[in-house]
Amino acid sequence: MQTLEVQILAVLAARELDSFITRREPSIEVELGGIPGDRHYGLLRPADSRQKFYPRNTMIANRRQLSLVSAEELRATALGLDIEDILPEWLGANVLLSGCPELTQLPQGARLLFPDGTGLICEGENLPCTGPGEVIAEALGREELSTRFVKAAKKKRGIVCSVEREGRISEGDAVRFLIP
Amino acid sequence: MQTLEVQILAVLAARELDSFITRREPSIEVELGGIPGDRHYGLLRPADSRQKFYPRNTMIANRRQLSLVSAEELRATALGLDIEDILPEWLGANVLLSGCPELTQLPQGARLLFPDGTGLICEGENLPCTGPGEVIAEALGREELSTRFVKAAKKKRGIVCSVEREGRISEGDAVRFLIP
Repeated sequence: MQTLEVQILAVLAARELDSFITRREPSIEVELGGIPGDRHYGLLRPADSRQKFYPRNTMIANRRQLSLVSAEELRATALGLDIEDILPEWLGANVLLSGCPELTQLPQGARLLFPDGTGLICEGENLPCTGPGEVIAEALGREELSTRFVKAAKKKRGIVCSVEREGRISEGDAVRFLIP
Repeated sequence: MQTLEVQILAVLAARELDSFITRREPSIEVELGGIPGDRHYGLLRPADSRQKFYPRNTMIANRRQLSLVSAEELRATALGLDIEDILPEWLGANVLLSGCPELTQLPQGARLLFPDGTGLICEGENLPCTGPGEVIAEALGREELSTRFVKAAKKKRGIVCSVEREGRISEGDAVRFLIP
């Protein structure tokens, strides 16, 4: 078991039903189903193209409750797109970490532990889809970025997590990674 | 993604509160919290020595809902203990598979899919503990087996799973493994 300590630069939630874009909050509460009031909250979610082995929209356990990204990987993706920066809001991320240049490589089953005892389970790499590319293109007024995002973000899109122990995650927290 | 097809020889549940020993049933229902009425059912469970990174008895997500063993690994363990056979009942197993000599190596995140669409997620290796050794020793009237079980079952104790899609698991079913 390897441990690593990283820092939380921002926590965010998507509280509007018509958009996946997240907004910063000083801290977020997490329950067994994710962030209450967030777009991705729920013990169950409909299966989509990521779980082709179930019929589309079958209700399955929600293991994509939170999306985590790292500042280092966002910078690397921005570099690949020739833009200054990528905001975590544009990707619908819930937690922005710093000190974790290889976040996307974190294995499924790794634990993320927070100061108040809150715990998340890494459910693996977040595969890039086209939605964030469109947001970036619109935000910067550069339409050509829309289709380039998926390739530029490959293996740098961060991870999805589910909640193992309920609690609170706050800006400025240190996070301990337990890597099996 | 690799696939493998194996067979269910028996399904079992532990419906008595004072024992982890399981009994055979023709089929079992599985819900998001596991097998309703089974000893290990629940969305939450208290943390134990396997999750030393949480204070003991803290309520955490239950990812140890079902225990699965393979006939091939049980035979290999029995051989190591110089006994004829090990029954899945003695280990508190919920599913006995055949055609899967390396079940315990199945990676966390592998999917197990059943004929009616039910789906389980492999949560990794089940680390052997002393309880089953005591049951085996008592069943066979050979006290010395009690302490030898943990070593003999190492890397052959099967896996624990959680439910991804609710449904029913029956004796005689074929199971499809999706290995990432």
